[in-house]
Amino acid sequence: MEPVSAGLTSPKGFLASGVHCGLKAGRQALDLGLIFSERPATVAATFTTNRVQAAAVRLNRERVASGRARAVVVNSGNANACTGARGLADARRTAALAARHLKVREAEVLVASTGKIGEYLPMSKIERGVIRAVRSLGRGPRADRAVSSAILTTDTHPKVSAVRFEVGGAQTTLAGITKGAGMIAPRMATMLCFLTTDVAVEAPVLQKLLREAVDASYNRISIDGHTSTNDTCICLANGAAGNRPVRPGTRAYSLLKAALGRVTLELAHMVVRDGEGVTKFVEVMVKGAASKADALKVARAVAESPLVKTAIHGEDPNWGRFTSAAGYSGARLDEAKLSCWVGDVLVFRKGLPVKGAREKAHAEMTGSDVRITLDLGLGRAETTLWTADLSEAYVRINAQYS
Amino acid sequence: MEPVSAGLTSPKGFLASGVHCGLKAGRQALDLGLIFSERPATVAATFTTNRVQAAAVRLNRERVASGRARAVVVNSGNANACTGARGLADARRTAALAARHLKVREAEVLVASTGKIGEYLPMSKIERGVIRAVRSLGRGPRADRAVSSAILTTDTHPKVSAVRFEVGGAQTTLAGITKGAGMIAPRMATMLCFLTTDVAVEAPVLQKLLREAVDASYNRISIDGHTSTNDTCICLANGAAGNRPVRPGTRAYSLLKAALGRVTLELAHMVVRDGEGVTKFVEVMVKGAASKADALKVARAVAESPLVKTAIHGEDPNWGRFTSAAGYSGARLDEAKLSCWVGDVLVFRKGLPVKGAREKAHAEMTGSDVRITLDLGLGRAETTLWTADLSEAYVRINAQYS
Repeated sequence: MEPVSAGLTSPKGFLASGVHCGLKAGRQALDLGLIFSERPATVAATFTTNRVQAAAVRLNRERVASGRARAVVVNSGNANACTGARGLADARRTAALAARHLKVREAEVLVASTGKIGEYLPMSKIERGVIRAVRSLGRGPRADRAVSSAILTTDTHPKVSAVRFEVGGAQTTLAGITKGAGMIAPRMATMLCFLTTDVAVEAPVLQKLLREAVDASYNRISIDGHTSTNDTCICLANGAAGNRPVRPGTRAYSLLKAALGRVTLELAHMVVRDGEGVTKFVEVMVKGAASKADALKVARAVAESPLVKTAIHGEDPNWGRFTSAAGYSGARLDEAKLSCWVGDVLVFRKGLPVKGAREKAHAEMTGSDVRITLDLGLGRAETTLWTADLSEAYVRINAQYS
Repeated sequence: MEPVSAGLTSPKGFLASGVHCGLKAGRQALDLGLIFSERPATVAATFTTNRVQAAAVRLNRERVASGRARAVVVNSGNANACTGARGLADARRTAALAARHLKVREAEVLVASTGKIGEYLPMSKIERGVIRAVRSLGRGPRADRAVSSAILTTDTHPKVSAVRFEVGGAQTTLAGITKGAGMIAPRMATMLCFLTTDVAVEAPVLQKLLREAVDASYNRISIDGHTSTNDTCICLANGAAGNRPVRPGTRAYSLLKAALGRVTLELAHMVVRDGEGVTKFVEVMVKGAASKADALKVARAVAESPLVKTAIHGEDPNWGRFTSAAGYSGARLDEAKLSCWVGDVLVFRKGLPVKGAREKAHAEMTGSDVRITLDLGLGRAETTLWTADLSEAYVRINAQYS
């Protein structure tokens, strides 16, 4: 498996486009993207677990069940969430229009939206945009750049990752794009992420692999602990590489698993690094937990505490905030067995502060990447979560959003 | 029952003091307080549910079980948390010293600490402070002011509340002081709160009443969702009013319940209003929930979301953040039955946005108090939580704490 600098159209048989239709304020801002497979493709997807779900999520859930799809229309600037039956009808109309112009069945078109909640889609703009997007379909760097830009909201740059690998003698590619940058705490789903691959693989196999990859990547990041209504990760696999379908237990399966794992993790990390107001990328590792669930509870409590996040922003080795967050996480915990590291510096050892460690710990926090490790000393379960600091810029961005 | 402008020494038989011993940076900053009952008193208390617990909390849990106490020594500037056996020994030594100078039994002295986690108490300073505090004991406005100031950390002013009421012909008073101002999400306990009353009441009755009062006040506020290691609420009742002990089912019981409810709620609200960087006091009301637990889940998710809190800071009626927080709270929820109000303005009605409501909703957010109401439309359970906005000042204060 080899990383490549390429976009969504690098796997064979995929086209893409990104156009401006007027949802975002800037006159030239791309706000409608289209991903299209020239041949029928297998599809797998994961969605938000929020009980309030965007129209696109509700529509896609139905359609993905068939295991087949060929196109995704995605708009930014409007989440089409909290919009009831009219919102769902708008999502259907968007897909129907794309289907007609792409000359595919309506059920093969998925949709995705991101942006402000609680406003109806301006359908005349969407309609013009869909037609323009179909006409603009292409492949190569320009198409890749357009589609990866069209899905962004408060992100500061497009996020792309791709790898190439050989499956049964066939050269195959997996590429993905994603966006953040606030309302990020995916929990069992993900923010917008689109993956294309020319591997041949049946839907149930792809679904299992995607679920595992998302669980180890998107479901392990948090910017602000607020799970979105629109989280969606869709993977289209069109088999254009010509390999025999990937089956469990084979080397091809391991390779595809590794490729999905790598690309989703890389994309998820990009989302954190480009989170709203983020200045530090933070890895929270929890080990020695009595169970995996406990490890996750501790990691989440630490990663989502505003006191932890502001301490990291201020490069302040105030580790009492880390250990106290572990304490209220709900996980089994014995203070006398608890240890904590900042970077490589042990600051709290089995219930006792380590003398003179603060100064050294501070030095571990001055870079752009910060590692916090907690060892509960109770068992063998462990997990890692990635999060970011909380800055005044985050507050500014989100106080002035609407 | 009548509110009175009076402090901790207004109930008969109580003395208090606040002195500087050198834990806080300022040369004159009061950082050690003492509360003393001239006669034996009944005690009730609630403590943090954090699994990482300060030395004072561990010591007090043992001592409060007896139902009797006469004094509380409280220091600010150092939490004496995450300090292991030495921290516990320091807490014991502090209490022992106070007991000796107050000429009471050691088991009758409680301690409390608030401030930075992970540093040992400087015991020579504490010892000088305790001796000075015992010598300074007094009653009246000066003593009240000193003790209510000595317990503060990043709070901007002392927080006091008191009521007077008649029990079986005897005039009685209940007074309380409290402090915040960060690491506030008490959950089944509270930050520092000290209550004195001259009512006669047995410990089990007082404990039940205090638990109920705290559950409806301190356990319903959150500033940053981070439950402290030191949360402590102690109520001393010395019976100096001369009433017959208050028993369940009597009018006196209802009066004492109402007095505790009022004073704790008033103090808890003061904590929110004086939270770190707070510019808005926010009431989150959830009704129509399928269960009380569900109502609380929704209220907590809304109250603790940084996106909700920054929207309120920016006076932005971006109610999609409120409804989406309800959606990921874990409570039963049907989007089609969900409604949301900002102040008195209905913005989301049974799953649909209310046209033209944003402008009016904005007007409801420009004052210092903001109300958010969510009706889940599923049942009859309801709850109210109080929280605050998230400002750039909160980030600044907490990035530069150590």
